[in-house]
Amino acid sequence: MGIVVQKYGGSSVSDASAIKRVARRIVEAKKAGKDVVVAVSAMGDSTDELLDLASQVSPLPPARELDMLLTSGERISMALVAMAISDLGFSARSFTGSQAGVITDSVHGKAKIIDVTPGRISTALDEGHIVIVAGFQGVSADTKEITTLGRGGTDTTAVALAAALDAEVCEIYTDVDGVFTADPRIVPAARKLDRVTYEEMLELAACGAKILHLRCVEYARNHGIPIHVRSSFSQLEGTTVSGSIDDIPIIPPTGPDEEAPMEQAIIAGVAHDRSEAKVTVVGVPDKVGEAARLFEALANAQINLDMIVQNVSAAATNLTDISFTLPRSDGQTAMAALAALQSVVGFDSLLYDDKIGKVSLIGAGMRSHPGVTAKFFTALAEAGVNIGMISTSEIRISVVVDEDDVDAAVAATHTAFDLDASEVEAVVYGGSGR
Amino acid sequence: MGIVVQKYGGSSVSDASAIKRVARRIVEAKKAGKDVVVAVSAMGDSTDELLDLASQVSPLPPARELDMLLTSGERISMALVAMAISDLGFSARSFTGSQAGVITDSVHGKAKIIDVTPGRISTALDEGHIVIVAGFQGVSADTKEITTLGRGGTDTTAVALAAALDAEVCEIYTDVDGVFTADPRIVPAARKLDRVTYEEMLELAACGAKILHLRCVEYARNHGIPIHVRSSFSQLEGTTVSGSIDDIPIIPPTGPDEEAPMEQAIIAGVAHDRSEAKVTVVGVPDKVGEAARLFEALANAQINLDMIVQNVSAAATNLTDISFTLPRSDGQTAMAALAALQSVVGFDSLLYDDKIGKVSLIGAGMRSHPGVTAKFFTALAEAGVNIGMISTSEIRISVVVDEDDVDAAVAATHTAFDLDASEVEAVVYGGSGR
Repeated sequence: MGIVVQKYGGSSVSDASAIKRVARRIVEAKKAGKDVVVAVSAMGDSTDELLDLASQVSPLPPARELDMLLTSGERISMALVAMAISDLGFSARSFTGSQAGVITDSVHGKAKIIDVTPGRISTALDEGHIVIVAGFQGVSADTKEITTLGRGGTDTTAVALAAALDAEVCEIYTDVDGVFTADPRIVPAARKLDRVTYEEMLELAACGAKILHLRCVEYARNHGIPIHVRSSFSQLEGTTVSGSIDDIPIIPPTGPDEEAPMEQAIIAGVAHDRSEAKVTVVGVPDKVGEAARLFEALANAQINLDMIVQNVSAAATNLTDISFTLPRSDGQTAMAALAALQSVVGFDSLLYDDKIGKVSLIGAGMRSHPGVTAKFFTALAEAGVNIGMISTSEIRISVVVDEDDVDAAVAATHTAFDLDASEVEAVVYGGSGR
Repeated sequence: MGIVVQKYGGSSVSDASAIKRVARRIVEAKKAGKDVVVAVSAMGDSTDELLDLASQVSPLPPARELDMLLTSGERISMALVAMAISDLGFSARSFTGSQAGVITDSVHGKAKIIDVTPGRISTALDEGHIVIVAGFQGVSADTKEITTLGRGGTDTTAVALAAALDAEVCEIYTDVDGVFTADPRIVPAARKLDRVTYEEMLELAACGAKILHLRCVEYARNHGIPIHVRSSFSQLEGTTVSGSIDDIPIIPPTGPDEEAPMEQAIIAGVAHDRSEAKVTVVGVPDKVGEAARLFEALANAQINLDMIVQNVSAAATNLTDISFTLPRSDGQTAMAALAALQSVVGFDSLLYDDKIGKVSLIGAGMRSHPGVTAKFFTALAEAGVNIGMISTSEIRISVVVDEDDVDAAVAATHTAFDLDASEVEAVVYGGSGR
């Protein structure tokens, strides 16, 4: 009998009636003849409420105890889901991450899953039970301490369980109908994607699409688990994440210009991100090793940089400017780390701008269509959007623009690449769980 | 270094400021040179809130899942207490019942502790940490399932930990100053007892004194662990429960009358209980085995009887009346079980009275003072209180009275046995935790 793993986020189990609806959904899969394993997040805002309690008790709570505290959230929701299933006449067993065999490293607050030993789950399935597992948590291999996986953790739990149990599919239930060609709140004509490759999904996630967490997609790709992202509020088919761009043949353009026929699969979507800030180090001496010293300092401060741009130095001064983007939440730390280096490196000044946004065009097909960049930039120009920084990967082009221009840039790009649906189909229900 | 086990109930950890106060208290013991192990209950009303959630999801939730749900309450409070201790500059480690080695049978909802294997606790103590343990919970020996211990469970956890760790004392922190000679809400002149034997405490608990749960006292007696019941709101010494009445010499009365000098230790206190009801089976044929059939039916219905009285039968009819008391919550079940037997046993009718109260006089010293019963009944008569039923043990006399007479009966008895304090010292802070 095939195994299906389902994941329900916080907004899908926000209260008793939501939990009952989820239970009916789970029972449907069981009735359809599947062995069902479910990973659940904490109810609605309960994680934030627990964090608030912690902050009232201690401004800087120990990470071990924070994990102990936060894992109670999933314990509550999983027990309630199991009860609701039982109320429908089916048998369910809930398991904590530790009981489910989710083995992690010992980095509290953002542990990585290193193994899943699902012995108790398999036994429970063999006995005919539906299995409910607390998402977002595990137990460390060496210290046997309770750990949490960080943001997006329950998605990762679900995919890891699916991999360990050799499940047919991992269904990620959320509050939207699937992965869209753009955020439907910005582009009402955005279309739901029926299928997207792991690599495209990774780029979408990295560029601001919040529907799936990066780590979960990476895990699924590494283990070849298809992810089906769909709404827990409707019966519609969602988006299946599977397959690699390596399996998609690169079709060379038919001519030297950008008039190659644009097929449907060229562009997966337009993502945007307003969570970053831009730092510019002005007047860095253009000598070997100076830039390295700056980035070493930032790395030591545990700051993840995104885009980095260095202009050619002006010949007269032999000075250059270096710009990079980073999460706004790291802005203060980064500026302090750099300022401490000013006398050593001898740069002129530091500029900080958090009124920026990043717009990214993602699609496996752009590998075989050299005209994509030109079309993208033309669309932005026609929409009156100025480009601040540019970075690209094999299947992505990202630009930094003024924060106020993000919506216009996304909409213009979406239209330019013929992504607009003939009629609006997107339904957005609000925030997403962890 | 000596080990002290402390227990804090739900009212002692009801919110962030209460938790910080508890943390300071715990740190005081650590500073005084003790190894400290703490058992905590869930915060304030959080257990009731979880039960409410469960009832919204399922009218009859599976016991296994209810235990999974409820145990999250202590997980939250223990992590917060550990954080608050950390904020004071001391290191604390919280452990679930399972992690702490609290091994139980597999009766969900009212599991019994069958062993404590405190390896992780001992290691944490050796490393210099203060240890916080989730009360009220354990893990079943055979099924490895999470269990709860039922009402009073955290007290039992604390005593069991104290026994397993060979602690000097188990301090039960609560919202009153200790064990009193009567409920200070009824008798403002009630006095705090400095010391009481296990047997007297057991009788007090069984007769309605809610300060300690029966099972906790039994566990402490079986393992010889002194319990110190004290307030978490003051620095006052509370009541120490230790020693056996077997160690108290029985002093024969000096004469045949009740004029033997009343020493201070004769009476420990006056307890009362308004949670019982009385059932009378009228006109039972006075034949061998008839009463047994009635009580067998009640036993099969899982009803615990308290007092049982059978009057001598009237010679003319050869019929007798049998009365017994039981928890009011079992009243319906008991009446139904008995009614089903009416045609078989052939009794006349059933009477049910839940407007009763039980008043009990408890003291090891009454073994050597035969005048106690007479003095008790005289006091009740002078207060105009009618006695409905009587039962006694070696160190207790209980009477059933009209519910409205309970307060007067307790007060009159307290005064008659010279228990009134010269000045009022009792401070009552409200409800107690589990």
